[in-house]
Amino acid sequence: MNRPVLVVGGGPAGLSAANALAMAGQRVVLVDKADRLGGAPILSGYAKLVPSGEWAKDAIGGMVRRVESNKLIDVRKNATVKTFTGSPGDFRAALSDGKTVEASAAVLCTGFTHFDSVNKPEWGFGTYPDVVTTTQVEQMLSSGKGVRCPSDGRVPERVAILLCVGSRDRQIGREWCSKICCTVSSNLAMEIRETLPKCNVYIYYMDIRTFGLYEDTYYWKSQEEFKVKYIKARIAEVTSDGKRLIVKGEDTLVKRPITIPFDMVVHAIGMDPNVDNMTLSAVFDVKLEKHGHIAKASTYSNMSATSHPGVFVAGAATGPETIDDSIAQGQSAAMAALTASQGAMKEAAE
Amino acid sequence: MNRPVLVVGGGPAGLSAANALAMAGQRVVLVDKADRLGGAPILSGYAKLVPSGEWAKDAIGGMVRRVESNKLIDVRKNATVKTFTGSPGDFRAALSDGKTVEASAAVLCTGFTHFDSVNKPEWGFGTYPDVVTTTQVEQMLSSGKGVRCPSDGRVPERVAILLCVGSRDRQIGREWCSKICCTVSSNLAMEIRETLPKCNVYIYYMDIRTFGLYEDTYYWKSQEEFKVKYIKARIAEVTSDGKRLIVKGEDTLVKRPITIPFDMVVHAIGMDPNVDNMTLSAVFDVKLEKHGHIAKASTYSNMSATSHPGVFVAGAATGPETIDDSIAQGQSAAMAALTASQGAMKEAAE
Repeated sequence: MNRPVLVVGGGPAGLSAANALAMAGQRVVLVDKADRLGGAPILSGYAKLVPSGEWAKDAIGGMVRRVESNKLIDVRKNATVKTFTGSPGDFRAALSDGKTVEASAAVLCTGFTHFDSVNKPEWGFGTYPDVVTTTQVEQMLSSGKGVRCPSDGRVPERVAILLCVGSRDRQIGREWCSKICCTVSSNLAMEIRETLPKCNVYIYYMDIRTFGLYEDTYYWKSQEEFKVKYIKARIAEVTSDGKRLIVKGEDTLVKRPITIPFDMVVHAIGMDPNVDNMTLSAVFDVKLEKHGHIAKASTYSNMSATSHPGVFVAGAATGPETIDDSIAQGQSAAMAALTASQGAMKEAAE
Repeated sequence: MNRPVLVVGGGPAGLSAANALAMAGQRVVLVDKADRLGGAPILSGYAKLVPSGEWAKDAIGGMVRRVESNKLIDVRKNATVKTFTGSPGDFRAALSDGKTVEASAAVLCTGFTHFDSVNKPEWGFGTYPDVVTTTQVEQMLSSGKGVRCPSDGRVPERVAILLCVGSRDRQIGREWCSKICCTVSSNLAMEIRETLPKCNVYIYYMDIRTFGLYEDTYYWKSQEEFKVKYIKARIAEVTSDGKRLIVKGEDTLVKRPITIPFDMVVHAIGMDPNVDNMTLSAVFDVKLEKHGHIAKASTYSNMSATSHPGVFVAGAATGPETIDDSIAQGQSAAMAALTASQGAMKEAAE
C-alpha cells in the first residue's frame, strides 16, 4: 500500500493540503507542534476573516473538524519532526514523540510568526498598555468583550491603526510587505466603527495595498460607509501626555508635522518568517530565500517544489500570504505531492 | 466510465486545472475559443513573467505542450460552449462546432479582457502613436525588436509608465484594483532600463502595490539598482508639443503641478471582466458579482464554487489575478471538480 504523505503544520494551508490528499484517496499524516489544529487564525483568536467575513472559529474551525474526522488523515498534535531521511516515495520522519512515520512525500505548511512589536520600540508597544496589535484587537472582537483600552477598560473615542509595523522597514531587517495587513486593517476599522459608532478610527499608511477586488469592498467602503480616515504619514514616535497617547509624525501629503492624541494605538503587525525556519531548513534539507522564508521553485510548472525533491511547500511558509491563497496553495501542493508520490510508486514497481 | 470534466479556457488557470485533473487520472475536455492555447500570456505576447522571470512562451508554452500531449485531455480549439444542461455528474455541453460533450463537472477558467485605453481618451491613447500599453511594450520585448517609439522607430530617451489605467477609477466604472500592474510595471521598467540603459523611466502612481515579497525584489530593486523614478501624481492629461508627449498633472507629494516631456507614454492597463461574462453567466447559469466577474463562493471550505452546483471557477475569471495564483486556483478548482465528480458517481451507484 502507498505510504502516506506527511503534512507539516495544521493551519489553513496544511488543513487544505491534508483534506485535498484525502479527497484523492491518499493517506496523510498531519503533524502540528501545537496542541490543536487551525494555525494562526485559531491559535491567535482571529475575528472575522478577509475576504469571506466568516468568523475564524467557524471557517477554519470547520476545516479542522473536517480533517479531524477524516479516517485517511492521522493527526499528530504536540509533535515536531526531528529528522527526515530517505528519498521520494520512501521517506522516514522521526517525530518528537518518539514515533516514526514513513512517507512518500512531504508538504511543509509551517506558516509564519507574527512580528513582535517590541522590536519597534519608538512606536510605544511594551511601554504604553493602550498600544496594542491587530492580533489583540482581533481577540477583543472574537472574545465578544469588545474593543476596550487595556489600561482602564474604557471605550476608546479615538483609535489609530499604524500600518507596516514590521514590514517595509529596512532599519529592522523587514524589507518585505506583509501583503494583507492593509486590507485586514480596513476590515478591523470597520468592525470597530460598527461596534463603537462614536469611536473615530484613523489609519496611518505609506501606500494602501487593498489589491484586486479589496479596493472598493474594503478601502472605499471603509471611507464612504464607515467614515474611517486615512492619513499618509511617516510616523516618528508614539508617546503619552499622561492621559492619552500621542502619535507624532509627518503628513507626507501636506508635508507638515502632525501630532494627534488617541486613546488606543494599534500596530498592524507584519508576518515574519516562522521562527522555526532555520530548524525546518536543516531537518528537511530545504533552502530558505534571503529573508528566511522557505524558498519555492520559481517555475510555473512546479510552483510548490522546494530545493529538496519530494518535499513541497504551501502558504505563508513561503512569504506573507492571504488565507484564501494559502488554501489554494495547499491544494496545489497536495496535487504535486500526489503526483510525486504516484510517480515514485510507479518507478518502484517497474 | 466516469464522464470527463469540462474545462473552459486554456490560459494559466485552465491549463493548470486540466493538467491537475489528468494527473489524478480524470479525463478532461478543454474548450478554448481561440485557435491556440495559453490565454493572455501567449495570445498577447507577454515577455518575462512576474515573478518567475521566465519568458511567457517558455513558461506558459511549456504548460500548453504538457496539456496537448496528455492523452487524458481532449483539446477543442476554436470552440465555445453554446448550451450547458443537466446536473452534477451528468452535464451535457453543446459546442459551437456542433459537437456535444458529456461532463461530470465544469471548471470555468475564462480569464479577463485587457482594459481598452481608448476609454481613457484624455491620456492620449489612440490620439498619439507613442502612447502605448504595457501589453504593447511586452510585445516589443518578446518580439526581440526592442522598445521603440511607434511613430518613427526611434529609441526613446524618456519613458513614462502611468499606473491604474482602467483601474481604481470610478469615473469610468472600474472601481477595482488590477492587482498586478504595479509589479508588472516595475518589472517592465527594469527590462527597459536593462535593454536601453540611457533611457530614463518614470512611473506615475497613486499607491505602489508591490505586495508581499515583490516589495524589495521589484519596487526597491527597480529604484536602487535600475534608477527607475516613482512620482506620486494625479494625472490630468497627456498631450503633445508636436515633438514630444507632455504629461500634465499634480505631484501629490509636493502639491505642485508638474508638466514633463516624454518620448513614450505607457498605459499600465487594467484587467476588465471578460467581455464574454454575460454570455457565460447565461450559458452556465452562474451569477456574476457586481463588477461583472464570475462570483465565487465566499466560504473557505469551497472557494472554487460558483452559484451553480457542479460548476467551478478559477483564476482571473473571478477578478484581477496573478499568474501564479491563477495556476494554484486552477489546481484547487480541479480538486473541487474531482470531488464533485466522484461524489456524483457514488450517488449514482447507490
